[in-house]
Amino acid sequence: MTARLLCIGEILVEMVADEVDQSNLAPGGWRGPYPSGAPAILADQAALCGAEVSLVGSVGADDFGAACLARLRASGVGLDRVRVDETGTTGVAFVSYRSSGERSFVFHLPETASGRFRLTEPEAALGGVDCVHLMGSSAFSPAAVEALLEVDAAAAALGVRTSFDPNLRPEMLNRPEYVAALRRILGRAWLVLASEGELPALLGDGTDARCAARLLAGGAELVVVKRGAAGASLFRRGADEVRVPGLAVDEVDPTGAGDCFGGTFLALHLGGMDAAEALRYANVAGAMAVTRRGPMSGNRTFAELQAVERSLTPA
Amino acid sequence: MTARLLCIGEILVEMVADEVDQSNLAPGGWRGPYPSGAPAILADQAALCGAEVSLVGSVGADDFGAACLARLRASGVGLDRVRVDETGTTGVAFVSYRSSGERSFVFHLPETASGRFRLTEPEAALGGVDCVHLMGSSAFSPAAVEALLEVDAAAAALGVRTSFDPNLRPEMLNRPEYVAALRRILGRAWLVLASEGELPALLGDGTDARCAARLLAGGAELVVVKRGAAGASLFRRGADEVRVPGLAVDEVDPTGAGDCFGGTFLALHLGGMDAAEALRYANVAGAMAVTRRGPMSGNRTFAELQAVERSLTPA
Repeated sequence: MTARLLCIGEILVEMVADEVDQSNLAPGGWRGPYPSGAPAILADQAALCGAEVSLVGSVGADDFGAACLARLRASGVGLDRVRVDETGTTGVAFVSYRSSGERSFVFHLPETASGRFRLTEPEAALGGVDCVHLMGSSAFSPAAVEALLEVDAAAAALGVRTSFDPNLRPEMLNRPEYVAALRRILGRAWLVLASEGELPALLGDGTDARCAARLLAGGAELVVVKRGAAGASLFRRGADEVRVPGLAVDEVDPTGAGDCFGGTFLALHLGGMDAAEALRYANVAGAMAVTRRGPMSGNRTFAELQAVERSLTPA
Repeated sequence: MTARLLCIGEILVEMVADEVDQSNLAPGGWRGPYPSGAPAILADQAALCGAEVSLVGSVGADDFGAACLARLRASGVGLDRVRVDETGTTGVAFVSYRSSGERSFVFHLPETASGRFRLTEPEAALGGVDCVHLMGSSAFSPAAVEALLEVDAAAAALGVRTSFDPNLRPEMLNRPEYVAALRRILGRAWLVLASEGELPALLGDGTDARCAARLLAGGAELVVVKRGAAGASLFRRGADEVRVPGLAVDEVDPTGAGDCFGGTFLALHLGGMDAAEALRYANVAGAMAVTRRGPMSGNRTFAELQAVERSLTPA
């Protein structure tokens, strides 16, 4: 059974600083362009895991956009709904890592071609789709929030399930209108994939587990809490929490790991795999993602994930 | 006598590709951010040569904007008319060199904070100014063209001289409305600083010398034609062409050399130096500019230019 997934949001390139604690104020070394954008990373990984993925997005008519599309096409992502916008450039994120573990970003996104994603023909696009995936990182401008809410409303009208990853950017929490939009999408989601602490931040509740219980009581069927190197948890209504431990890997570049986790989980679970088993593979995929520089560079096919998983399990 | 100069236009940062013929389609090494933008480079160099320079521009409220402002401030450029725009990011140009000698650009500019320069309070800004410098590179959007035309009209109304460098981007020649605006500014200019071939491209005439003669007949007092490594020419009404030969230097990064030439010429000539002598120093400054990576990295003070000039002249 092939999972059929629609994703929407930003497609951009990333430039990664060579040095930890590199200043943005003085010339330094960078590497890029790496195809990026949380929904694009997720779509890429879901396609590598066998899902039929259609990505809704927009890039500029420039080399950086071409680099993104070439990568996504090679992974098998459907690009019929990606617009090449002649009036703008492809977005760029400059990412540098801090010795504190934090990341510092300079983003060129809302104003670029990448910021102008929008689903046209929602009925045609959503027909036959198993799930629509939405991400909070895409809520970076009033137009983008509107595009997300439109897709969410169309999915509701057509009875299509949604999955949602809050993927919060700290600056968004200062914009009440964005928070309200994300809460609305969250409240309708069939599947929630959140990083540790994001649900409490969005819902104003104390713990991830309490938020998960509240979402399950409200209509969600599955809530996954991602804890990075500490593994992940799966919450289902009327069932015990399922935990998977973190995997010890050499971290090179954590950007995109959560999206890679999400793409794997969606492809496998929508494809028919039990959620607890899909969680295990998603956890492996997230761990593999951090071992290479570049947000999509660590994405793996399902066969590759199986090989890693076998090597981890004692015989 | 201190030259008082007003410049207007784009302030942005540049990322420079590590390798010649580096692809924009795959990850590669880059170095930056280097403060850039043709009017900013010119303003920086004019200030280093002793001019009192006020720059009209706009940057984003981000590290890249801060890097530009710190550099310009250190060189003595007046930044009272530079707006820090909270609603956008600082522009970025990705520049790579081709073995053919050409440059390849991916520009994030018209949509950014850097693209939203505009002179407010023209009467106050232009009072007491010796010259307003305008550049064709700044004509990258309808709003930018309007901002340039406004300044040009205000200078005309207040009787302030203008200098103009066409600084053509190839894609502009396909936009007749931009070409018309540049011709209008060119037609009014007291001083024209053009690279070889630009005047024929703009005026549809065959040679630089013929275009210069036409501009001098039309009202310009000085026309300088910059020929890069081949030196430069000065044309004045009723006087012979003055030529300076190119200087042999190791070219590392040619970006900004023409702007550095222009800033030197303006600062020295407006400061009272004879145009032919100012041309000689401008030629030295342009040659020095190409010896360092980064568009402003090769900018020099007048004292430094004098030292270079002395070392070049046989005793």
